Amino acid sequence: MMVAEFLEHQGARIDAFLDSVLPPECAEPAELHRAVRYTVFAGGKRFRPTLAIAVCGALGGDDGACVPAAAALEMIHVSSLIHDDLPCMDDSDVRRGRPSCHKAFGESTAVLAGDWLLVHPFELVARQVELGVLPASVAVDVTAVLARAVCSRGIIAGQVEDLRAESQVIGPDELERIHVLKTAALIEAAASVGAAVAQAPAELREASRRGARALGLCFQVVDDLLDVIGDTAALGKPTGADERQSKNTYVSFFGLDGARRRADALADEALSCLSTLPPSEWLGRLRDLVHFVVRRTT
Amino acid sequence: MMVAEFLEHQGARIDAFLDSVLPPECAEPAELHRAVRYTVFAGGKRFRPTLAIAVCGALGGDDGACVPAAAALEMIHVSSLIHDDLPCMDDSDVRRGRPSCHKAFGESTAVLAGDWLLVHPFELVARQVELGVLPASVAVDVTAVLARAVCSRGIIAGQVEDLRAESQVIGPDELERIHVLKTAALIEAAASVGAAVAQAPAELREASRRGARALGLCFQVVDDLLDVIGDTAALGKPTGADERQSKNTYVSFFGLDGARRRADALADEALSCLSTLPPSEWLGRLRDLVHFVVRRTT
Repeated sequence: MMVAEFLEHQGARIDAFLDSVLPPECAEPAELHRAVRYTVFAGGKRFRPTLAIAVCGALGGDDGACVPAAAALEMIHVSSLIHDDLPCMDDSDVRRGRPSCHKAFGESTAVLAGDWLLVHPFELVARQVELGVLPASVAVDVTAVLARAVCSRGIIAGQVEDLRAESQVIGPDELERIHVLKTAALIEAAASVGAAVAQAPAELREASRRGARALGLCFQVVDDLLDVIGDTAALGKPTGADERQSKNTYVSFFGLDGARRRADALADEALSCLSTLPPSEWLGRLRDLVHFVVRRTT
Repeated sequence: MMVAEFLEHQGARIDAFLDSVLPPECAEPAELHRAVRYTVFAGGKRFRPTLAIAVCGALGGDDGACVPAAAALEMIHVSSLIHDDLPCMDDSDVRRGRPSCHKAFGESTAVLAGDWLLVHPFELVARQVELGVLPASVAVDVTAVLARAVCSRGIIAGQVEDLRAESQVIGPDELERIHVLKTAALIEAAASVGAAVAQAPAELREASRRGARALGLCFQVVDDLLDVIGDTAALGKPTGADERQSKNTYVSFFGLDGARRRADALADEALSCLSTLPPSEWLGRLRDLVHFVVRRTT
């Protein structure tokens, strides 16, 4: 199976699950649920949940049991996109080629849809205990991992520092710190969620966490590269935005070649962490995901 | 002990705990943590956490083990106040006699501080398992109760419907539905959290939940009354605001006497639910809390 096919297969699995657990658009309050579904089903690659499922499988866990926790990760990711796009934040009118949530549903509904997608994951994970999908201790573990990736060592802290950086001169270390918080923390959490569901021993859990952290940073470096060399139509957003907004990026600090070398080094680091995992078909998929991230064009 | 003294004692206990678990103002990102502490320590009565602790005690649980989950309830309550005050929501510049969070820290920090206070509670509750304060099954139970009180059957849904009601003619049933979601759901959750920590049998859990739901509605009816007959200085917010904004309230539907009768009936309903609980000193405190809510002047 090619990596594109693997991503598509896992993405369809996550989408089917999300569709089954998100309230229908007709359920009250209908505008809230419409906004939630509009943004969740805007066509993401489902990279984070796919990573969680692959890590769970590679560490010997039941990949099916990981689907709800993986879907929870995706909801949190979508929530952060909604709040980041708000006028008081990055003020983005377009997301994935269509109007962002607040443009389509108004600002108050967007704030509340983001809040909903930030909290519902915790209900979803807790419910898996009742359903017999996860033992209580694993649900607690997953809850802690998810909440940490959001708060002071995660996406909220990253957004605060990113907004502050707009009005300050920052160096490459500070840029990397922001990206670790804004992007790598949730990708790292994806691996930790997979490892938690697999109830993997500490050293394997740590190896996959470190690998995912490098992969998360690699993901962001490639994002910066694509903003310069990518194709507007394929990406669903205008390229060159970073330069127009004089944003600090890996490219502005290190140039195209330097940024490309950094991405390759981070991918190598991720692969080297993976080399400590037991060989399996899932491990092959994980390696494919690393190659996919570093070579992606959208 | 008088009820004021009891509330003060439990409030101080919650405050000390919150102070110990919230990141210090100097921890990065400092403006985020300053905004969180500014709003958490703006002087609330800590009614919800106190109710959770009292229910836990009355159902034979260890009240000390309930403090973290009770503090989690308060963080969620404060988060909802921050987001409700935003310009795109109720646009309130003043909260508890001082500038609201977005007036003091800017809109983006307020959105993110609200997000932080919405998610950190789940980390806090999960951490109690590691610390040996709560069994994993209880932490999962508390997590589910908290998340449900926030999402489609709780404060987010209530805020969506409240905003919609501003531009529509609604009747008293619709008003009560909004109040059940916006106010009663989290007060009901407080009782359920206390009962979960106490690991109480289903029928006692249900009785305290129903009692708290009536108490939560009573709380809101009295709120509407105080907006008409209360003292601006004592309340820390201007009275008469509902009438100026032509808001639908219990008073506008039923008049002062009708609203007062509704508050008394709800308090009686709460007391009747409590009468099925085993007698104890904590039960006396719970009864005192009901009387406090229905007679409160601030």
